[in-house]
Amino acid sequence: MTNYVAFNAQRAIDYVSTLIESKQCNFFDSGQTLSAYEFGDGNLNLVFRITDEQNNSVILKQALPYARCVGESWPLTLDRARIEAQVLLNHGAICPTYTANVLHYSEIQALTILEDLGNLQILRTAQNNAEQFPKLAQHVATYLSHTGFYNSDFYLTAQTKKALVSQFTNPELCQITEDLFFSDPYIEHERNNYPKQLQNEVDAIQKNNALKLEIAKLKANFLSNPQTLLHGDMHSGSIFVDCNNTKMIDPEFGFFGPVGFDIGSFIGNLLLNYCAQYGHIEDFVARRNYQTHLLSCIVDTYSLFEQQWLELIRTKTTDESLAPVGYAQYFMKNVLQDAVGYCGAELIRRTIGLAHVSDIDSISDENARLTVQKQTLALGEQLILNAQACNNKEAFFSLLISQLN
Amino acid sequence: MTNYVAFNAQRAIDYVSTLIESKQCNFFDSGQTLSAYEFGDGNLNLVFRITDEQNNSVILKQALPYARCVGESWPLTLDRARIEAQVLLNHGAICPTYTANVLHYSEIQALTILEDLGNLQILRTAQNNAEQFPKLAQHVATYLSHTGFYNSDFYLTAQTKKALVSQFTNPELCQITEDLFFSDPYIEHERNNYPKQLQNEVDAIQKNNALKLEIAKLKANFLSNPQTLLHGDMHSGSIFVDCNNTKMIDPEFGFFGPVGFDIGSFIGNLLLNYCAQYGHIEDFVARRNYQTHLLSCIVDTYSLFEQQWLELIRTKTTDESLAPVGYAQYFMKNVLQDAVGYCGAELIRRTIGLAHVSDIDSISDENARLTVQKQTLALGEQLILNAQACNNKEAFFSLLISQLN
Repeated sequence: MTNYVAFNAQRAIDYVSTLIESKQCNFFDSGQTLSAYEFGDGNLNLVFRITDEQNNSVILKQALPYARCVGESWPLTLDRARIEAQVLLNHGAICPTYTANVLHYSEIQALTILEDLGNLQILRTAQNNAEQFPKLAQHVATYLSHTGFYNSDFYLTAQTKKALVSQFTNPELCQITEDLFFSDPYIEHERNNYPKQLQNEVDAIQKNNALKLEIAKLKANFLSNPQTLLHGDMHSGSIFVDCNNTKMIDPEFGFFGPVGFDIGSFIGNLLLNYCAQYGHIEDFVARRNYQTHLLSCIVDTYSLFEQQWLELIRTKTTDESLAPVGYAQYFMKNVLQDAVGYCGAELIRRTIGLAHVSDIDSISDENARLTVQKQTLALGEQLILNAQACNNKEAFFSLLISQLN
Repeated sequence: MTNYVAFNAQRAIDYVSTLIESKQCNFFDSGQTLSAYEFGDGNLNLVFRITDEQNNSVILKQALPYARCVGESWPLTLDRARIEAQVLLNHGAICPTYTANVLHYSEIQALTILEDLGNLQILRTAQNNAEQFPKLAQHVATYLSHTGFYNSDFYLTAQTKKALVSQFTNPELCQITEDLFFSDPYIEHERNNYPKQLQNEVDAIQKNNALKLEIAKLKANFLSNPQTLLHGDMHSGSIFVDCNNTKMIDPEFGFFGPVGFDIGSFIGNLLLNYCAQYGHIEDFVARRNYQTHLLSCIVDTYSLFEQQWLELIRTKTTDESLAPVGYAQYFMKNVLQDAVGYCGAELIRRTIGLAHVSDIDSISDENARLTVQKQTLALGEQLILNAQACNNKEAFFSLLISQLN
């Protein structure tokens, strides 16, 4: 095997051909002519679709040694390809239905070959088109509760969990989150990205000590609370969907962190889309209908997530000392409060930080876009400031409804 | 270098001679005749004192591949010798005055050579003789606050800290604590060790769901809160003292855990001695005087510990996002509540769990011993149940005084 080299389409074909002809993989028949093209729109990776003569296809994803959006000035470890493949394998073993299937992984080339999910849509794209997915809530709740529980102290022995925590130590990608999520939006920073018309709102956020105090708690919790193996980047661009299927992809930010982070990020993205619809769906009733669908999705996801977690704790906990009456409720209350806080932080950082969402950026009318951005900032703030008052999920839903009406 | 072999005195001499004659170490002059004897009273290690002709001496501590108290049936990783040496080196770099000095470490032989602190006393032995150490509180507070702060998220970059968390992953020794501290005392377990006259009290503890709920929280926090590099075994047998000096030894249980654990364990041991004095000092006034000294030592240690932590956070925090007004107070309130809980857990596990303390076991009068044991159990329970109500250190001190009077 050669050293790492960034692939082009021909190299991708050659690599896959070698795997097939040497019988290391069997996702294509041997002797086929393969074709390939690169279509990644991410910032950190090359993504190729490789197709055989029968139109069978796989995805080859290769990590670049730098962040593509910033150029080679932001070098990034290739180890994230290992993290991504190993998180997919871990989560896939627990929850194969909702996790993209890994067909091959090469540490040297920092690449993973995955099932082609091109028959599905990226959730964000679909939601920008106001499409509805009635099974999404149940699928996401099942994925997050099961991968969360089976990687937690409730289920794993302490020794196994400590080994996994080391295996999934992901310092460089965690640092991106630590910076972009918890630091940049709350200070003047060149990486921040917002229109000058939001300067008053940004100033208010950056001077709001009560808000920054809650962000400090959320950051410290992100840094030092290895409760479970997170996906780490649970936004609407990491989820493939159709009416019947949901598949999580791209867990290269995976690490052991607080259970509330993934579910909070996911709900934050639904709320970003909720707010953005003001700039997409002109008809008030149609908009209201779609927003109501999103709100139902949030309520269902969180309710099922919590219900499944509680059921897993009740029936599958292996550590008797974590089983006293009331501990599961105490644990899940903290998960909720964390989730509400992280959800709020996602709203703020996607509005004024480096990495935006197309839900908002694709709004063509500038005034509408500003209105949406002011709403996501205000909502984010209220969620962060009131997270600790959410003693149960109903309080969270009431808070949401009061802020969104 | 040969493979691991458990030493006897002659092998210890041969090993040190080779180090000296090959000039790998210079703590003895070359050409000296050395003598050695083993005097360890611990359960996990061999400890030799090696002396040259001028009566210079060093301590050679070698890990055994099993727990000596249980015999070879409880195998234990030799990696704990690495952990111990590396914690001493880490803490010694931050706080050399109060950390035993490492002169040599061998991974293969699982041994560390340390400065000989035989001119000092073990704190537990001295306190059993009612000796007072006016500088102990300040020294312990300084050691815990400085080693704690400089290994925390306030000071380290996230990437450096994650590397240290992996380096100090200590699954086997943590499991001993997880079992003996948080599990065994709260269930029927063959490792538990208490007189049948305490059966009613033990039954009450093991049926007290409110207590077990708090223990579950403390255990989960111990498992998943890598705030700083702890000593991990801060009892009175891990501290050498005289009037002017304090030296921490034996951090083989070191790992990244909650800041409150070490200070809580230390205070728990002072309280064990406080209670035990009922069986040692007959004269009421003399006993009261010594107990008052111990209580002062607790108050001073915690007050200085907190004051130094706050000062370090204020002046040395490198992560601006952990600097909002109020965050340090929030952090230290949680440390206090953790410390009170761990302190209570130490009282209970040292009374009914496997590992006792000589403070109590050396009480010859059985009735006096039982009285003390009932007091440590009751005090431990009250500390655990009221830990979350300790919003500041004064509340903790008031709680202590109300329970001890």
